[in-house]
Amino acid sequence: MTAQHQNHALKAAVIQHQSPGYDKHKNLQTSAKYIEQAAQAGAQLIVLQELHTTAYFCYTQKQDYFDLAEPLNGTSVKYLKQIAADLNITLVGSIFERRTAGIYHNTAVVLDGDAGMVGFYRKMHIPDDPGFNEKYYFTPGDATLNGRCAFQPIQTRVGRLGLLVCWDQWYPEAARLAALQGAEMLIYPTAIGWDPVDTVETQQHQSEAWRIIQRSHAIANHLPVLVPNRVGEENGTQFWGQSFICGAQGEILNQANQDDEGIILADIDLQQTEQLRRTWPYFRDRRIDAYRNLTSRHIDQLN
Amino acid sequence: MTAQHQNHALKAAVIQHQSPGYDKHKNLQTSAKYIEQAAQAGAQLIVLQELHTTAYFCYTQKQDYFDLAEPLNGTSVKYLKQIAADLNITLVGSIFERRTAGIYHNTAVVLDGDAGMVGFYRKMHIPDDPGFNEKYYFTPGDATLNGRCAFQPIQTRVGRLGLLVCWDQWYPEAARLAALQGAEMLIYPTAIGWDPVDTVETQQHQSEAWRIIQRSHAIANHLPVLVPNRVGEENGTQFWGQSFICGAQGEILNQANQDDEGIILADIDLQQTEQLRRTWPYFRDRRIDAYRNLTSRHIDQLN
Repeated sequence: MTAQHQNHALKAAVIQHQSPGYDKHKNLQTSAKYIEQAAQAGAQLIVLQELHTTAYFCYTQKQDYFDLAEPLNGTSVKYLKQIAADLNITLVGSIFERRTAGIYHNTAVVLDGDAGMVGFYRKMHIPDDPGFNEKYYFTPGDATLNGRCAFQPIQTRVGRLGLLVCWDQWYPEAARLAALQGAEMLIYPTAIGWDPVDTVETQQHQSEAWRIIQRSHAIANHLPVLVPNRVGEENGTQFWGQSFICGAQGEILNQANQDDEGIILADIDLQQTEQLRRTWPYFRDRRIDAYRNLTSRHIDQLN
Repeated sequence: MTAQHQNHALKAAVIQHQSPGYDKHKNLQTSAKYIEQAAQAGAQLIVLQELHTTAYFCYTQKQDYFDLAEPLNGTSVKYLKQIAADLNITLVGSIFERRTAGIYHNTAVVLDGDAGMVGFYRKMHIPDDPGFNEKYYFTPGDATLNGRCAFQPIQTRVGRLGLLVCWDQWYPEAARLAALQGAEMLIYPTAIGWDPVDTVETQQHQSEAWRIIQRSHAIANHLPVLVPNRVGEENGTQFWGQSFICGAQGEILNQANQDDEGIILADIDLQQTEQLRRTWPYFRDRRIDAYRNLTSRHIDQLN
């Protein structure tokens, strides 16, 4: 074993909290409180939920809400950058990004200690259903950016982060493309919840499916997965919390409950990936000669 | 609702049993016993485990074992065809196929009542590790066959079967390509087990990962999944049974234990797929403009 392969334990935290109203500074102060708790507990990597600076405004289509958007060098990113530098941590935040007039994104940002913002990821898969009008607000992320294909991981001092956002979590393609580009872990800042009119059984099927699909990305790619989710009721959606961190075989390392704000911590073993890929060599056996049609919307059956 | 959308319940069964030794007729009689039980319980679709006519010979590399292979119109398929016709069921079996001298496959076959063999699927992803020398025996299935891309589902009177085999279960790509071609359910005849020298914790992580990855294919594609697995000890592998059937949101409908031979039954609601795809429209939002690199072995990072 070389020195490079030793000492690859990483203490990570994900945070779930309520983000009521539209006072960004107030919500950022809530985030800061939990970030400080996590850093004091030794977390080197800390991940916040999707759109944590405001209430989840996509419950409706309202043109004024575009005023909430801000550029990548805006106030929220500056605030998070300062925290990351002060606490000497790697921090993943989430903003409603104004890229230019008429182009707005749902963007995760990475603040890496005193190195500042070392990368960002614009949500690629955009949902749209009652209570989640995201196609109205968010332009989908670019399929290629600066000549690199999408789902490019972000290099930080704690490893290469495969950053994805919420609805991306239902797409094995996204996780795979991050893994093929060298991601060392997958990260899904999330805002997902139940419709209170659904039965408890329906709700449980939904949150169980959500947990399983993300654990499956760990399993298929042998990568740890970190998922912070929003919590609390907003405008008819009960955000279901249950933030979790799992290891590279999908095993749950820690999980939050569905109601309470707080942090969860886990020690992630980054050596596990190579060991598992030797024991279960899925990547060796991918039938890349047979996958071309994955770029089809549907393969219509004409006979 | 049109008549076409009504009455889409399907009673299905998966069978797990031991398959000791190399007397194919004897093992086929074991299969037949359980097939009859399942048919009497009302099963319209019955699925057998991988390579059920013999012991799992891939534990070692032995040239004589190629003598076990037989053509698609060989004795084993004829036997299964007769059962399917007699019991008026749709039956999925598994054979070691001799396609020609020097080309052998691990092939699932579909016998559809009195219609005979309506299709087959040659395992695409071939594992190879200690105790599972499959690359020695099995030529991988063709990337295209008769001008159609691989993972083409098989039309039967109970629906379009997305047939895959064992190691294929670790590849979201395979499930997706079956779904994009109109599969109405996914089926994985399997022979997977524990190494008894591993710890109980390692073993449980493995079988839990196996269950989750297959439930994730249900979730990502909104299709029911049927998985029969071999059971019993053979040549240093403890096949772990735990055959299961889950619904189109990954919810477990029925599951066998890890030790005993037997059948498990479930009523599958084939209407659930369209309903779930309307509520959770993943297929609408796939970023097919960004998936081209899924045909890469690895996307090397040159800077």
